[in-house]
Amino acid sequence: MRYELYYWTGIQGRGEFVRLALEDAGAAYADVAREEGDGIIMPFLRGERPGAQPYAPPFLRAGRQVIAQTANILAFLGPRHGLVPASAASQVYALQLQLTIADVVAEAHDTHHPIATDLYYEDQRPEARKRAASFCKERIPKYLGYFEQVLERNDGRHALGRRHSYVDLSLFQLMAGLDYAFPRTMKGLRRRTTHLRALSERVADRPNIAAYLASPRRVAFNEDGIFRHYPELEPRIFRTRQ
Amino acid sequence: MRYELYYWTGIQGRGEFVRLALEDAGAAYADVAREEGDGIIMPFLRGERPGAQPYAPPFLRAGRQVIAQTANILAFLGPRHGLVPASAASQVYALQLQLTIADVVAEAHDTHHPIATDLYYEDQRPEARKRAASFCKERIPKYLGYFEQVLERNDGRHALGRRHSYVDLSLFQLMAGLDYAFPRTMKGLRRRTTHLRALSERVADRPNIAAYLASPRRVAFNEDGIFRHYPELEPRIFRTRQ
Repeated sequence: MRYELYYWTGIQGRGEFVRLALEDAGAAYADVAREEGDGIIMPFLRGERPGAQPYAPPFLRAGRQVIAQTANILAFLGPRHGLVPASAASQVYALQLQLTIADVVAEAHDTHHPIATDLYYEDQRPEARKRAASFCKERIPKYLGYFEQVLERNDGRHALGRRHSYVDLSLFQLMAGLDYAFPRTMKGLRRRTTHLRALSERVADRPNIAAYLASPRRVAFNEDGIFRHYPELEPRIFRTRQ
Repeated sequence: MRYELYYWTGIQGRGEFVRLALEDAGAAYADVAREEGDGIIMPFLRGERPGAQPYAPPFLRAGRQVIAQTANILAFLGPRHGLVPASAASQVYALQLQLTIADVVAEAHDTHHPIATDLYYEDQRPEARKRAASFCKERIPKYLGYFEQVLERNDGRHALGRRHSYVDLSLFQLMAGLDYAFPRTMKGLRRRTTHLRALSERVADRPNIAAYLASPRRVAFNEDGIFRHYPELEPRIFRTRQ
């Protein structure tokens, strides 16, 4: 099956979590909007195409099926490509973890858009500064502390069982995005995120992922995406409780 | 199987979406924190109990399995209690819709906590006013317009196929919460939400749901929950494009 991925061009965004799974699996897929432009996405959002109507990209076309919501797409792809253990209980747990990653990602977005998604960042900068301070001081440590513990309670190397999964891929992407957006904060957390760091390096070294990251298909992080680096947003003095 | 639901006492919150499914299904469950206090939740969050470690409530214990994240719990319960069609494609679509409901719910929360979840509402009131204005003017109409279209593209009465599902229950709860928090906005949208209104009434009339809503187990909406009614947050003049 050749999948069709639909996501806005020019950014990694939420689509990147799906892209990493497809790339890691070596799955055949078209990144449709990159070939045909963002306009191809709109008829789906207006309900003018067969299959489930997405509220927003990313969505995946798999045969006649249209599947939206990042975590849902990954839960669909996981068992088809060996990216999640076979047991039903493991798949439920994988989705739980992925949804918690989605929660951090949504909060990362809101650091630069705390008031309204339809306003520019520049129109909500004072509020963004406050929200980002809270995100860096309270939320990143709490979320990463949780995922670090998840790894530690497991085998120290994987989110699930003794094997690689789409959750590991997403943890890699989460770390990469936070490193880009909030480098001082992430540096301050290095000693408390050793398992996550080691996992990220292992993921980056997987042959298909390494090839993908070196390819032009991996667009760079930038200030149109979800993880944005606005130096003025990161608290200047940041002390973590080590 | 007798389930154990774990959620903070005193509010409906995200736990209510799970509670509605359990009540509608007539499932046997203990609402554990209501019996034993919120303290019972903490050891799970600290990873001191067997099974998956939740990041936050609600979570459900089903035998030895611990399941967190609202949409994930519903995806688990759905097929066990006839609250989702049997086909895999329908279950994927149900989860997609539920995750979009979760997105609105998260945005509803952020109307009163746009800066930091660990600050009081009173400490972020000016920002809350701005975020709530955007939520009422842009986001509620867009999300409800989407769900209205989902119903219309289906049979006009259900989110999925020709039958009741956990997504219908969640749409009822979403409408109830938004009605409580933003009554003027919702009144202004009445003519554009006729299918959602009719669905909500049908859900409220289901025997198990009607009995539940009339019982003391349904705690009232209040200003500790996700859907909060702060009259000062709702834009005073609100015109919808009918």
